Amino acid sequence: MTVQLSPVPDHVALPAGFRAAGVHCGLKKNQALDLGLLLADRAVPGAAIYTQNRLVGAHIHVCRDHLQRSGGLVRAVLVNARNANCATGEQGIADARHCCRELAQRLGCPEEQVLMLSTGPIGAPLPKEKIVASLDALLGSASVDGAMAFARAIMTTDTYPKALSAELQGRRATCFAKGSGMIHPNMATMLGFLVTDATVAAGATADRLLRQVADRSFHRVTVDGDTSPNDTFVLLASGAGRGDAAALTTPLAQRLAQQIAADGEGATRMITIQIRGARDEHEAAHVGRVVATSPLVKTAVAGLDPNWGRILSAAGRAGVPFDAERARVWVGPAMVYEHGTCHPERERAAHDHLVHETCIVLGVDLAMGDAAADVWTCDFTKDYVQINADYRT
Amino acid sequence: MTVQLSPVPDHVALPAGFRAAGVHCGLKKNQALDLGLLLADRAVPGAAIYTQNRLVGAHIHVCRDHLQRSGGLVRAVLVNARNANCATGEQGIADARHCCRELAQRLGCPEEQVLMLSTGPIGAPLPKEKIVASLDALLGSASVDGAMAFARAIMTTDTYPKALSAELQGRRATCFAKGSGMIHPNMATMLGFLVTDATVAAGATADRLLRQVADRSFHRVTVDGDTSPNDTFVLLASGAGRGDAAALTTPLAQRLAQQIAADGEGATRMITIQIRGARDEHEAAHVGRVVATSPLVKTAVAGLDPNWGRILSAAGRAGVPFDAERARVWVGPAMVYEHGTCHPERERAAHDHLVHETCIVLGVDLAMGDAAADVWTCDFTKDYVQINADYRT
Repeated sequence: MTVQLSPVPDHVALPAGFRAAGVHCGLKKNQALDLGLLLADRAVPGAAIYTQNRLVGAHIHVCRDHLQRSGGLVRAVLVNARNANCATGEQGIADARHCCRELAQRLGCPEEQVLMLSTGPIGAPLPKEKIVASLDALLGSASVDGAMAFARAIMTTDTYPKALSAELQGRRATCFAKGSGMIHPNMATMLGFLVTDATVAAGATADRLLRQVADRSFHRVTVDGDTSPNDTFVLLASGAGRGDAAALTTPLAQRLAQQIAADGEGATRMITIQIRGARDEHEAAHVGRVVATSPLVKTAVAGLDPNWGRILSAAGRAGVPFDAERARVWVGPAMVYEHGTCHPERERAAHDHLVHETCIVLGVDLAMGDAAADVWTCDFTKDYVQINADYRT
Repeated sequence: MTVQLSPVPDHVALPAGFRAAGVHCGLKKNQALDLGLLLADRAVPGAAIYTQNRLVGAHIHVCRDHLQRSGGLVRAVLVNARNANCATGEQGIADARHCCRELAQRLGCPEEQVLMLSTGPIGAPLPKEKIVASLDALLGSASVDGAMAFARAIMTTDTYPKALSAELQGRRATCFAKGSGMIHPNMATMLGFLVTDATVAAGATADRLLRQVADRSFHRVTVDGDTSPNDTFVLLASGAGRGDAAALTTPLAQRLAQQIAADGEGATRMITIQIRGARDEHEAAHVGRVVATSPLVKTAVAGLDPNWGRILSAAGRAGVPFDAERARVWVGPAMVYEHGTCHPERERAAHDHLVHETCIVLGVDLAMGDAAADVWTCDFTKDYVQINADYRT
């Protein structure tokens, strides 16, 4: 039971200069795709940002090292599902390097131009022989039509593949994600990939763009506040022209972030937390994340209860100053709290919103300034507990 | 379904110089006690600490004002359940003052020597007539045997009354609490009361003692990270002798905090998060709270899954630096993670601990220093979601 925001596309375009692939190498059951590849025709500017967790997967050590040694140039990104290669010590790092080296040899590029990402349960050694044995098949199937195969190969707990593409002023960007919020059993990972033929200089410019996009997309989705040791977001930009890469890529990443929220385990509603009237966007996003992680708010939505008290109280514990007498709270079209008091006569409209919509809006106006931010999450159901309590038993 | 750490006592002693009472004034159904009183024979040093939420109940404004005007002297504490008097604007504050004044008149003391606390659903006007109409009966029933009546009167979602008393070096302290974690439907409140015949000077000394006790007790219990607009912890000290009031009162408050965790909605296990090897106690407690609020950790315990990866990863996102290669994780008697890797052969003992004990221990050694802290919580079950989703519908 999750929310699907739009039908899964049959085909998603890739920007010029990129191919993609997904094959089965033996990690998932039932011949499901479990090894993905994003391949640039030549080494292109790339960047990555990583989880803030103190526990990090082996791939993060290797990605950091490779991007530094390559001067921010990337030829290929290899992704395996079903094994996080995390809490695997020095051997895990050596295993990831080995896979990168094997792929680099086949491509005839320096090994530091290959990145590798892993996602899945943590603690088990990476089955690198299975991965290396499938590299020729993976390269052989790489094509401009490979986007959906890649999107499927990186799935873990996702109930549908997440890929979108858009064009703006003659430039294309395609975004991929995996993850159902940050709520994965056993800390599987949120991964994001943004490939574009827009022009982005390697190094600091690419890093800055990626952070800017992430701050307004993947950093604004939360399901239960937990983060994974492997969370990674990668940018590849092949372009040689002009165009505002941020304007092209940010809305795309935001749509993917919403899909992640909607695909939260056990979710019956996608929720947009709208924070308005903040002193700055950073504070607005912070308050939004606190509201979005409140189990009381999320169980209220599951129970179709327009509980303004839980929303206001969650905002109130974010550590951001505001005056509760001047603040306002809305549920869909209904302003359920303003002028320091609730308005029970408006709760019918709020209740109808919860009953009839699968995309729910909960809003708080802090009445402190002009800044705003949206944060995406999902409701919190008994199915969530079931899925996460039963994962390994 | 909650965990009971010890049988509910028939009788709990009060320190010399105090009486207590609980009556039914018409707020709860079925003649249940809903109005409580703690009464000192004379005005005694008192202190209170409050929720950090930006949304605060009316009683907090009044308590702050009264303690300031009285120079930290308190004669009586009045508590009503079933109505939080929160988000009730200026009228709510006036209503709370009115109740204090009516009680003060009957006691012949200044109104600022009376504190009032409210707990229950927020948004509804305080039924002050019902409260005032019961003040004579309340005063009439106040006695040295009234502790359990008071403990019952302040209950909301609690499944059992929470009161404990202890003696040390000829001094007695009695502690009361209400709350099942901070997980109350509609943000009902955690309240704590500590009365003692130990000697504590009014003002800064009393404030300091109360903070010191709270930092090691009620500030270390969490169920879902949400806080209430009405959370309040009150100290009254009648003593005129010597003795270490902190040594007397801290263990008592800790036991009550554990009871609150154990009485978490839907809980089947009380969990002690042991953080060891921190650089200081503040960091240890912070890491403990992050682990204790992780839905992934809490659902794993509900599912009897000794999931070291979720524990270590939750610790890893607390923002406190440590080296995951040197950290250790234990579940009951079993060291399930050390030297940078898991030990699957020890998971049987960990699983047995989860299956056979109702008081679970999860531990993390950060290997950064010598400081330690324990934090208490409970597991996270489908019943929690049920209770909180269905509360108002």
